[in-house]
Amino acid sequence: MLYEKLAEEFAMQISAGRLQPGDRLPSVRHLARQRALSISTVVAALRTLESRGMVEARPQSGYYVRRRPARMAEVQMPAAAPAAGPVDVGVSRRLVQVLRTNEAPGMVPLGSALPAPELQLGPRLNRLYAGIARRRPGLLAGSSHSDLNEAPLLHAITRRALEWGCPLAPEELVVTNSCTEAMTLCLRAVTRPGDTVAVESPTYYLMLQLLEAMGLRALEIPTHPVTGVSLDALELATRRPAAEGGVRACLLIPNGANPLGSVMPDAAKAKLAALLAARDVALIEDDIYGDICFGGARPRPIHAFDTSGNTMLCTSFSKTVSPGLRVGFVAAGRRAADVELQKTLTSGKTNPLTQHVIAGLMESRGFDLHLRALRRRFAEQIARTRDAVARHFPAETRVTDPQGGFVLWLELPPGVDGTALHRRAAREGIAFVPGELFSAGGQYRNCLRLACGRPWSPTLEDAVRRLGRLVTG
Amino acid sequence: MLYEKLAEEFAMQISAGRLQPGDRLPSVRHLARQRALSISTVVAALRTLESRGMVEARPQSGYYVRRRPARMAEVQMPAAAPAAGPVDVGVSRRLVQVLRTNEAPGMVPLGSALPAPELQLGPRLNRLYAGIARRRPGLLAGSSHSDLNEAPLLHAITRRALEWGCPLAPEELVVTNSCTEAMTLCLRAVTRPGDTVAVESPTYYLMLQLLEAMGLRALEIPTHPVTGVSLDALELATRRPAAEGGVRACLLIPNGANPLGSVMPDAAKAKLAALLAARDVALIEDDIYGDICFGGARPRPIHAFDTSGNTMLCTSFSKTVSPGLRVGFVAAGRRAADVELQKTLTSGKTNPLTQHVIAGLMESRGFDLHLRALRRRFAEQIARTRDAVARHFPAETRVTDPQGGFVLWLELPPGVDGTALHRRAAREGIAFVPGELFSAGGQYRNCLRLACGRPWSPTLEDAVRRLGRLVTG
Repeated sequence: MLYEKLAEEFAMQISAGRLQPGDRLPSVRHLARQRALSISTVVAALRTLESRGMVEARPQSGYYVRRRPARMAEVQMPAAAPAAGPVDVGVSRRLVQVLRTNEAPGMVPLGSALPAPELQLGPRLNRLYAGIARRRPGLLAGSSHSDLNEAPLLHAITRRALEWGCPLAPEELVVTNSCTEAMTLCLRAVTRPGDTVAVESPTYYLMLQLLEAMGLRALEIPTHPVTGVSLDALELATRRPAAEGGVRACLLIPNGANPLGSVMPDAAKAKLAALLAARDVALIEDDIYGDICFGGARPRPIHAFDTSGNTMLCTSFSKTVSPGLRVGFVAAGRRAADVELQKTLTSGKTNPLTQHVIAGLMESRGFDLHLRALRRRFAEQIARTRDAVARHFPAETRVTDPQGGFVLWLELPPGVDGTALHRRAAREGIAFVPGELFSAGGQYRNCLRLACGRPWSPTLEDAVRRLGRLVTG
Repeated sequence: MLYEKLAEEFAMQISAGRLQPGDRLPSVRHLARQRALSISTVVAALRTLESRGMVEARPQSGYYVRRRPARMAEVQMPAAAPAAGPVDVGVSRRLVQVLRTNEAPGMVPLGSALPAPELQLGPRLNRLYAGIARRRPGLLAGSSHSDLNEAPLLHAITRRALEWGCPLAPEELVVTNSCTEAMTLCLRAVTRPGDTVAVESPTYYLMLQLLEAMGLRALEIPTHPVTGVSLDALELATRRPAAEGGVRACLLIPNGANPLGSVMPDAAKAKLAALLAARDVALIEDDIYGDICFGGARPRPIHAFDTSGNTMLCTSFSKTVSPGLRVGFVAAGRRAADVELQKTLTSGKTNPLTQHVIAGLMESRGFDLHLRALRRRFAEQIARTRDAVARHFPAETRVTDPQGGFVLWLELPPGVDGTALHRRAAREGIAFVPGELFSAGGQYRNCLRLACGRPWSPTLEDAVRRLGRLVTG
């Protein structure tokens, strides 16, 4: 749509700082003439920017760029250096407690990174279940030990991956019950207890929990809030061979990292793939946010840059379709046989009816429209949340400007204790995840993650306001 | 039904050896008069026995007990002694190869223990999926990290377990993707790599594969083909504390053991529960065949005899409903929190729609009828297979007389190599599982397992005949 293109152009100028808070945008009339667009198209573009919290209308004056919180992009890299060395992980207990607190009934849901129920495809899925169940009565009668993948899903996955510029071979695919399961299988295929696994810092708490459960050690690699994991640091960290206690595998989120929202540039992805292949360090990449990144094109997974078969691409449909569906996959490269064996061992074949349901959804024309709408919604929800943080949190607060996904990472003034804040917020019925759970080494105590999976609402506005007051008080 | 009762009575007399092969049964007229039954009821009873391969009609003469193969029940215990000590497991690769060979298209399916498609509830499940999907559109939109269990399934499980005489607390239940997953979670909750786990000998190959994948050692405990694992041997094997290299956990199939078909008597179950609780050795019991044992009452799991919370009961619906459904559960006793954590880590919540589907099925009145019919069918299929083995295999062949499940275990004359036999049979298009895969210590080379999941047919008869010829030749 023309209005979306115009909105995108201004959004980029604002993000890049070429338009500063307080700057006045050209008038509607001027823009329409200059671009040869209709008045209504220009107004639609400006309204889109307004709904994303990027501009505000001032009566009788026009549109102005809103005040935005400090961006983390300009911020120096986190202090953590790999020199700190690998550490044993011990987050599980605290994490489970935080998640349970967050999911108590009535909590304002800024905790778990879940898309709002109305952004999921529940009713569509149900129709697909009903239809396929009727048409394919024999689907549930097969064996559960071999033939892990249903052909229509293999077809849907490989076709879609081609569109991302990431050819996948059907032979390397293993359908799983989730992205978490996919990563678990990969870790089991390539590591042994006591091995070291490199992760982004900060990284998604479930990654740390996985390492803990398997007796693996975490090495936190500094990660840039826009461009992702530091290649220099990874290069340094992987010099020692795994056999001598070096890094055995990397577990990374190159597209829409959780919690930073960074997307690695293509050149960095290619370099990383080559580096890890050369050093025989297995790469497990979590691409669960790949479909909801905000740049023009869907970013390619690192798997697309790796010809060696060393990269294992893991993903699922929990963020884009439904977290309850429980279906994902891994493209395991040259380790497909090992991963397949682990899958047979762990849970057998994923429900074939569910496999057909997700295949049917992926092949439907509406799926692309759904993803596009989802990206717009998440971008808007992030913008609204950032804006509210700017208005209600202390001025020194720094916040990410995510390139994908739907979480925000906040760095609070030094001395603020995110975990103590979580306890106080929980008593007020507000959920979020404190920063220390994103580190195995006890970093990020003055940080926190806010999930932006829900459409903006007065309840959310009020929750951010009260959270800001708790920080200040 | 009256005819079933009469058939059962004769079946028991035959099984117990009070009626010997070649014995003539009382005449129809005599039986009808003696029991005050109608002629047609008596005829129905005799036909039932005939269809199970237990008696044969001789024209103008009456019904005679058929010749049956040697029963393993009278056979001494297997030679394996725990003195042999725990061993590392290395069956996975060979096993995967055997399973793949067996599941090639066109193979006569005496390999995997799968119920025939026509004995499964595919169409019923599909109707339930369609109906619940329509009525509960929000079911797939929830979180996947907490609330692992759907309330209707908890209710169905606890209600049904009460019927078995095995009260389960909702708080100890974790719904899983399969029985295999349930056991994996339990093993992860109670063991660390290098620990020793006691298993039946012979035991289901997947148990050994699980131990291998987790770096656990297997201690094979002699197991009786009728009464199950040897308590004396277990008592001896668990004297050394786990901390000093002794047994950390037991992984057993007390009801309808795979491959032996044994069912532990209640007294033995109670004694085992007390022994393991006293010695702090965790018990993981696989009850997947509990619903398809052939005695009068559904046998109780060991969990029913354990008040200490030390027993973790694992099961699924793969043998009774559909192997493709992928839903099971564990009642984890005092380790429920640990198992729950492992489930969250491994695969998150099991698909809630599927949870409602299986709950709906369990609560339907037809489910009990289905299980009853299934038991009859499996008993008949086992009897037919045993009978064919008796006719076509060498006279020294010994075969189990299973108390439950639907597999037969054969001991061939010494010197016959089951694995070589498997290769030759595979070339002829006949699948089975060679005995050595049921041992971590290389036992049972002259044994094999035949699955009896399919209704008897000329194809099966022919396959057993050809298999017998391969053994002889």
